[in-house]
Amino acid sequence: MTNTQVTLVQLDNYGPWTVTPEPRREVDLQTLQSRLYADLSQLVGNRDGYVFFTRFDNMVAVTNGLDMEDHARLQESVRNRYPVTVSLGIGHGETPAGALVEATDRLQSAGSAQDAERREVLAGHPLDEDERTDDDVQIAHFDVNDATGEYTDELDAYSAFVHVEQAYASLMRHMHDTHDSLSFFVGGDNIIAVCPSLDRDAYAEAIDYVREDTGVDLKVGVGRGPAAHDAGMAAKHALEVCREEGLDIAGDAV
Amino acid sequence: MTNTQVTLVQLDNYGPWTVTPEPRREVDLQTLQSRLYADLSQLVGNRDGYVFFTRFDNMVAVTNGLDMEDHARLQESVRNRYPVTVSLGIGHGETPAGALVEATDRLQSAGSAQDAERREVLAGHPLDEDERTDDDVQIAHFDVNDATGEYTDELDAYSAFVHVEQAYASLMRHMHDTHDSLSFFVGGDNIIAVCPSLDRDAYAEAIDYVREDTGVDLKVGVGRGPAAHDAGMAAKHALEVCREEGLDIAGDAV
Amino acid sequence: MTNTQVTLVQLDNYGPWTVTPEPRREVDLQTLQSRLYADLSQLVGNRDGYVFFTRFDNMVAVTNGLDMEDHARLQESVRNRYPVTVSLGIGHGETPAGALVEATDRLQSAGSAQDAERREVLAGHPLDEDERTDDDVQIAHFDVNDATGEYTDELDAYSAFVHVEQAYASLMRHMHDTHDSLSFFVGGDNIIAVCPSLDRDAYAEAIDYVREDTGVDLKVGVGRGPAAHDAGMAAKHALEVCREEGLDIAGDAV
Amino acid sequence: MTNTQVTLVQLDNYGPWTVTPEPRREVDLQTLQSRLYADLSQLVGNRDGYVFFTRFDNMVAVTNGLDMEDHARLQESVRNRYPVTVSLGIGHGETPAGALVEATDRLQSAGSAQDAERREVLAGHPLDEDERTDDDVQIAHFDVNDATGEYTDELDAYSAFVHVEQAYASLMRHMHDTHDSLSFFVGGDNIIAVCPSLDRDAYAEAIDYVREDTGVDLKVGVGRGPAAHDAGMAAKHALEVCREEGLDIAGDAV
Repeated sequence: MTNTQVTLVQLDNYGPWTVTPEPRREVDLQTLQSRLYADLSQLVGNRDGYVFFTRFDNMVAVTNGLDMEDHARLQESVRNRYPVTVSLGIGHGETPAGALVEATDRLQSAGSAQDAERREVLAGHPLDEDERTDDDVQIAHFDVNDATGEYTDELDAYSAFVHVEQAYASLMRHMHDTHDSLSFFVGGDNIIAVCPSLDRDAYAEAIDYVREDTGVDLKVGVGRGPAAHDAGMAAKHALEVCREEGLDIAGDAV
Repeated sequence: MTNTQVTLVQLDNYGPWTVTPEPRREVDLQTLQSRLYADLSQLVGNRDGYVFFTRFDNMVAVTNGLDMEDHARLQESVRNRYPVTVSLGIGHGETPAGALVEATDRLQSAGSAQDAERREVLAGHPLDEDERTDDDVQIAHFDVNDATGEYTDELDAYSAFVHVEQAYASLMRHMHDTHDSLSFFVGGDNIIAVCPSLDRDAYAEAIDYVREDTGVDLKVGVGRGPAAHDAGMAAKHALEVCREEGLDIAGDAV
Repeated sequence: MTNTQVTLVQLDNYGPWTVTPEPRREVDLQTLQSRLYADLSQLVGNRDGYVFFTRFDNMVAVTNGLDMEDHARLQESVRNRYPVTVSLGIGHGETPAGALVEATDRLQSAGSAQDAERREVLAGHPLDEDERTDDDVQIAHFDVNDATGEYTDELDAYSAFVHVEQAYASLMRHMHDTHDSLSFFVGGDNIIAVCPSLDRDAYAEAIDYVREDTGVDLKVGVGRGPAAHDAGMAAKHALEVCREEGLDIAGDAV
Repeated sequence: MTNTQVTLVQLDNYGPWTVTPEPRREVDLQTLQSRLYADLSQLVGNRDGYVFFTRFDNMVAVTNGLDMEDHARLQESVRNRYPVTVSLGIGHGETPAGALVEATDRLQSAGSAQDAERREVLAGHPLDEDERTDDDVQIAHFDVNDATGEYTDELDAYSAFVHVEQAYASLMRHMHDTHDSLSFFVGGDNIIAVCPSLDRDAYAEAIDYVREDTGVDLKVGVGRGPAAHDAGMAAKHALEVCREEGLDIAGDAV
C-alpha cells in the first residue's frame, strides 16, 4: 500500500497580478513561471521530492520526506526572490488523487486562489517520520514507443506534438478516473504518473486504453520507494529494461 | 494576409543524453529544460518574438524580426552555458502551420533528432526586412471563462487541471487541423494560438467546438502586429475587453 | 577619442529591503543578486553591451548601442520578475569615469538610493545613433601571468585569492585616479577595464604600478570597437596573442 | 573553539575552456559563473551552508552539516546542467584558514586546476555528526558606517565602489594574516568573515586597522551557531543592534 504525500503549490492571486495595472509582457511571465518551477524543483528535489509544473500557477509536488519546516523554507525562498508568493496545502493518503483532494481542501478552506488577502497559507500536515515506509511511493514512467522514428523524424513538429498531447490528455484522464493516479507530461514523449499500488494488469489496461483512444503506443517502467526520487529512478531504470528487451511493462514493483 | 516566421528549436540528441551513461536525476532534467526555455524566451523576447515550450526538447518560436545572426547568437549562448546544444530550422509562410512544416523539413533534411553527428544545424531563411509588414502576425489569446470560480476554487487541483488539459487538447488539434494554427498552453487557463488571418466566425466556431467536445467555455482576444509581442499584447488587451464587457470574442483584428 | 556610454543600475531602496521586517536569509540575497546580474548581462549583452556586478546593488554597464526604449524594457523585465526594482542613470563622454559621474548625477538628483519614494527612475540620455562611431569603446582585458602555476596550484585557495584581490584593488584605484578608467574583476584572475583612448605607455605604466604595489605581474590585451562586445572580444584575442608570444601588452588599438 | 568545515569548489580546467576553440562571449561567461554560483548557494544553503563567489572559478563554501553524499549530489547537479564540472576538496579545523589549507591540499594532490584529466574530484572528509557542536561556526558581518550617506549618495558610483573595495582588500588580508579568518565581499557595503573564536578585542583591532589603512569606518555583528546559516543570521541580528544603538561591535558571541 502506498502512502503518498502531496503538496499543492498555489501562486497567490496570480491571475490578477498578471494583468495589473495592465497585461504584463508574455515572455516575462513565461520566464517567471518556468524559473519558479525550476527553483521549486531544486528545492524539493534536494530532499528527494518531485514537483510537476501542471498549470504553473498551480503546481503539484510529491513531498514524502519534507516536513513543515522544509515547506516553510520553500515559501520563504520564493518570497525573498520573486514578486509573487505561494500558498501550500499538504495532504497524504493511500492514493495520490485522494492526497491531492485533501491538499486542495486545506487551501480552499483558507480562501480563494484570487483572494488578495489570502497569502502564504501553509496548511495540512506532513507524514510523521515514523509513519513512513520504504515503499510509500509508486511511480510509473511512460513514454511513446519509437517516438523519434514514428513522429519526430517523420511528421512536422506540431503534428508530432499533437500526437503526444492527445496521448497525454487521454492517459491523464484515464489514470485519474480509473486508477486514482496523477499523471504529468515532463517533456519529450515522457509522462510520469504518481500511482497507488497498481499491478501489471492496470498498466496493461491503461496502455490499451490510450492505444484505442488515440492510436499512440506507450510503454511503462514502474518503480517503488520511500520518496519520489527513489521510486522515479527505479521507474527510469525499468523503462530502460523495456527499451532493451522490447517490453511494454517492466519494474520490480509490479 | 499573415506572414509568420516560425523557428523550430530542437535539442540535439537529447533523449539519449538523458539516459547516458544511466538515467539522469529527473529534477535536474526538469530544471535544465525549464531554464533553457526561460533563457530562450528572454533571448527571443528581447527581439519581440515568442517561444513556446511545446515538448521542451522541441520548442516552437515565432521569430518575425530575428535574422540569421540573431539565430546564430542564440545557438552560441546555449552552447556556452548548457551541456546540450540546439539546432534551428526556420520557415515562413501564410499560415503558421505551413511555416512550421517548412522549418521542420529543414531540420529533418539535415539528419535525425537523435543523430549524434547532427549538431547545431542552422537551416532555412528568415524574412527579409523588406518583406515584412505591420500585420504579419495574428495571435489569439484564449482563456477559460471564470476558471477560478468554476474550477480552481471548486474542484480538487487535479480535476481542475484535467478540464483545462482536455480543453487544450481539443482546441490545439482543432485549430491545427481546421485553421492551420499553432496553439500552446502557457499556464493557468491560458492558451495562445498563432493563427493565419482568421475572422470572427472561425473563432466562434472553435469556441463552440471545444464546448461541445469537452464542456469547457472559452473566450478569446485577438491581436495583430509586425511581430509576436505586438500581436500578443494586442490580444491580451482584447481579452481584457472580453472580461470587462462579458464578450466571447474581441479584438481589432477580427 | 572614445565616447563611452555608461549606465548606472541602482537597486531601489535595497539595503532597507534586505533587513525588513527582519534580516533575510543570506543565501537568498546572494541568489537574488547574482541572478539579477546574470539577467541584466543577458539583456544588455544581447545588444552588445556589458554589465559589471560591481557592488551588486549598484552595477555599472557599458551601453553604447542601447537607446531609451532598451533601458525602459530592462526596467520592465526586472519589475515583472523580481521583488525589487531598478533605477537607471545614463551618461556618456570622452572618458568612462566622466560618463559615470554624469550617470550618477542623474540618479542622485532624483533622490537617495534609500529613498522609499524614488523608484524606477530613468534619467539621462543615450548617444544618438548619428553620434556613434566605430571606435567609441576601448576595453583592456588584464590577467595575472601564470596565475594557475604561480598561485592556484601553489598556494591555498584563499592566499591565491588575496593576491588576485590586492592586485585588483591596486589596479582599479590606479586606473581610475590616473587614467579615468573603470576596472572590474570578472572572475578567475581576469580584470576588464573600460578606458578612454589610452596608449601602450599608459598600460605599461599601470602594469609596473601594480607590480611594485603588490608584487603581482599582469599582462593586458586591448581592443576597440563601436560597443563593449566588439571592443571586449578584440581585447580577448589580443590577450591570447600575449599568451602565445609572451608579451605584456598586445592589441591593434595601442 | 570553532570547528569550521570548509569546501573548496574548483571548476575543472575552466580557464582553457573559456578560450577554446576561441574566446567565448564575456556576457555568457558572466551569466554562467553567476548562475552556477546562485545554484550552489541554493544547494548548499538548503542545508544551512554558505557559498562565497570568491573568484567564481574557485569558490569557498562553509559546509558544516553537509556530508559526502550531499557533496556528491552537488557535483551531479552541476554535471547535469552545466557545460563544466566541479571538483570539491573538503577540510575542517579550528580555524577557517586552516580548514581551507587542508581542503586545497586535497585538490592539489589530485592534480592541477588546469589538468584536462582531473575531473570531479571529491576529496577530504566532512565532520562526523558526533563531532559537531552547537557553536562550531563563528561569523562576523561587517558593513560600512552610513555607506549610503557618506558614499553612495555623495560620490559618483565608481568612487564609492573604490572606497568599499579598498576597505575590503584591507580587511580580507588583515583578517587572514592576523586572525586566520576568511572574509568575503557579499554586495553593497557588506563583508562576511568566517572566523575562529575571536573576541571583541580582535574585532575592535580589525576595525581600527581598516580605518587607519583606508579611512573607511566599519562596524560588525558577530554570531555563532552549528552551521553557517545560524551563525550568519545571528550576526545579521547583531549588526541590526549596532545600527539601532550606534555601536561598533555587537553579538552574543563576543
